[in-house]
Amino acid sequence: MHEPLRLPPSSAGRLEALSDGVFAIVMTLLIFDIRVPRVAPAEMPMALVHMWPSFAGYFVSFALLGVYWSGHRAQFNFIVRADQNLTWINIIFLSLTAFVPFSTGLLTQYPHSLLAVSLYGINLTLIGVVLYWHLHYGIHHAHLLSGSIAPHVVRYATLRCLLAPACYLIAIGAGLIDTRLSLVIFAATPFLYIIPWLQGVWWRWSS
Amino acid sequence: MHEPLRLPPSSAGRLEALSDGVFAIVMTLLIFDIRVPRVAPAEMPMALVHMWPSFAGYFVSFALLGVYWSGHRAQFNFIVRADQNLTWINIIFLSLTAFVPFSTGLLTQYPHSLLAVSLYGINLTLIGVVLYWHLHYGIHHAHLLSGSIAPHVVRYATLRCLLAPACYLIAIGAGLIDTRLSLVIFAATPFLYIIPWLQGVWWRWSS
Amino acid sequence: MHEPLRLPPSSAGRLEALSDGVFAIVMTLLIFDIRVPRVAPAEMPMALVHMWPSFAGYFVSFALLGVYWSGHRAQFNFIVRADQNLTWINIIFLSLTAFVPFSTGLLTQYPHSLLAVSLYGINLTLIGVVLYWHLHYGIHHAHLLSGSIAPHVVRYATLRCLLAPACYLIAIGAGLIDTRLSLVIFAATPFLYIIPWLQGVWWRWSS
Amino acid sequence: MHEPLRLPPSSAGRLEALSDGVFAIVMTLLIFDIRVPRVAPAEMPMALVHMWPSFAGYFVSFALLGVYWSGHRAQFNFIVRADQNLTWINIIFLSLTAFVPFSTGLLTQYPHSLLAVSLYGINLTLIGVVLYWHLHYGIHHAHLLSGSIAPHVVRYATLRCLLAPACYLIAIGAGLIDTRLSLVIFAATPFLYIIPWLQGVWWRWSS
Repeated sequence: MHEPLRLPPSSAGRLEALSDGVFAIVMTLLIFDIRVPRVAPAEMPMALVHMWPSFAGYFVSFALLGVYWSGHRAQFNFIVRADQNLTWINIIFLSLTAFVPFSTGLLTQYPHSLLAVSLYGINLTLIGVVLYWHLHYGIHHAHLLSGSIAPHVVRYATLRCLLAPACYLIAIGAGLIDTRLSLVIFAATPFLYIIPWLQGVWWRWSS
Repeated sequence: MHEPLRLPPSSAGRLEALSDGVFAIVMTLLIFDIRVPRVAPAEMPMALVHMWPSFAGYFVSFALLGVYWSGHRAQFNFIVRADQNLTWINIIFLSLTAFVPFSTGLLTQYPHSLLAVSLYGINLTLIGVVLYWHLHYGIHHAHLLSGSIAPHVVRYATLRCLLAPACYLIAIGAGLIDTRLSLVIFAATPFLYIIPWLQGVWWRWSS
Repeated sequence: MHEPLRLPPSSAGRLEALSDGVFAIVMTLLIFDIRVPRVAPAEMPMALVHMWPSFAGYFVSFALLGVYWSGHRAQFNFIVRADQNLTWINIIFLSLTAFVPFSTGLLTQYPHSLLAVSLYGINLTLIGVVLYWHLHYGIHHAHLLSGSIAPHVVRYATLRCLLAPACYLIAIGAGLIDTRLSLVIFAATPFLYIIPWLQGVWWRWSS
Repeated sequence: MHEPLRLPPSSAGRLEALSDGVFAIVMTLLIFDIRVPRVAPAEMPMALVHMWPSFAGYFVSFALLGVYWSGHRAQFNFIVRADQNLTWINIIFLSLTAFVPFSTGLLTQYPHSLLAVSLYGINLTLIGVVLYWHLHYGIHHAHLLSGSIAPHVVRYATLRCLLAPACYLIAIGAGLIDTRLSLVIFAATPFLYIIPWLQGVWWRWSS
């Protein structure tokens, strides 16, 4: 990865456009996997109630994708150019992101299966790890950056990439005890990023 | 929400790109839920006629999404930066928007069900309420704005966010009498935004 | 439509982004309606051969969408701002465009049905007519334009919007004789726009 | 193609936006064709194992699309305007790209069929050939370019367009011996573009 540049890097604009497109579609396809029940009208309310794992899976996956999308966007505040390697790291990142509707579907179909829980957790962990690889590659190639970056921004961005994967690994481990525990951890993880007070905690920790 | 900023806000550009992507997909997926009838050619015309609730649902939902998309776009005329909180308000907004194909499908499948009517109405009401939350958060955080905003623009944008939810709540109430009444109100609401003369009325009201 | 402006118009950028998103999805969804045959391997080649109306429908609809997308894009070379009315004309335009996968599916399912041919033709005609409405509205509202427009550019853009609908109306009429004739005209129409020599003819005609 | 220009060319921005949209959707739809197995929980692990051709097809097609997307993006570093002909070359390019989910589905459904292998290979070859046509048209129309282009950049871009199609033609030929050989070549081709060391080889070759 650290050999001399082959071609001058391009502006990162189209990489961001492709990524926004993939995230928009993945987020939207999550709902498309939830089919409207085709039962007698009198049974429809109960059918909806029984679909609660699908609805929960939808909002949890939407929030997790939101975590990664906003981490990705934040990196492009200082990474303003993309060379071939950064482009390919992005494409790997996107191929794992586009896999989420499948692993979400597997999880909502088999909520008690340790395998389904683990595959979902591994999928999400890998996205976070590749996002960290993206950060690491970017900040070590000065010609891709808009300028020098303060150390605490790097620490914050690192923590932001790796906090979620750490939670997902814990969730997989918890699945050995009870897969419901895993589901709770999956559902709780985005709140570390959403709740301003919790975010403040790890922002201060990295400063 | 009003605690000190943790990170400098980013340009709102990618938030807008993600939103445009989600709206484009949601609008287009609406048609994808309408399947071409697979019957004998002689029966196809009647099959199409019986599908009228799907076609009506398509155009009504497209118009309602148009209302919210154009309200969202209008806010970004003055909100030009996004911090973490605004980003998450947007992601909540998008997760509710991406839910519309499901609630539209439920409504066209069960047009006489008060539950289906109510869920559709609640979905659309929540989108409007979150859009208002977005406006409210934006205009109270000056560092996200391009400059100061005239009071009548704020009044107009507020009315624009809340007029549609008010109609949807009325539609849900009307469903207690007859769900067909609800459907008429759902279908009529976008015209408040589309017909120049009607729009002029509430524009003058907010000035 | 000619009453005084209510709000200052916005830049047309997001309208273009939404439109590009809708076109990209509609074009791509066309293929998604063509299912991989699930037959014994020995029968697969014949199954593919029998699917030729779907493949033809795919490329014809892709080309027709290309005609309208590129006409739409060309108008935004001089229309640089969008008011509420122009926004809604666009949303109507997009709702008709997003309908194309359905009418294409109907046509490839019922290629001998005059109703299917007519609905496909009417769908495409309406897109062209709304695109002309868009042009007409834009060029008569100077505050939406980047500057004054030469008369021959207006004539060319008008012809560009209306040439395809004229062909589709002829195709519908031809369906009264034989629907295969309609299909040939649908398939031939994009070439008026694609073949440089043919395009040159009507470009010189409008100059 | 070389007759005098009919209309001043437009900025290439929207062509890039449409292309990014199509690529984002095509990449994401690849996963959507892989259905979550609906079997008893105890049989799910084996069901997933038997789906390995779908998973392999997903990542291989994602990588191949990444190769073409990044080649397309690289050309727009120097092609900054688009006339009608370039627009239509792009639309042909996109119509072949949007075909990939179908040919991938055919291949994963019939991995031992020479016809399926050949259609997949021909589809990918054509994309590369049209991408070369795009390059060739662009660099021979100076008014579409940002400036003059160094000869080694042209050589590199040419090689980049044609290297993958050459591999795919070899893969089709190898299918006459054994279709598994074709699949290996399809899977290996993207690494010529991804692995920095391999890329360095043909970059030096074109310099």
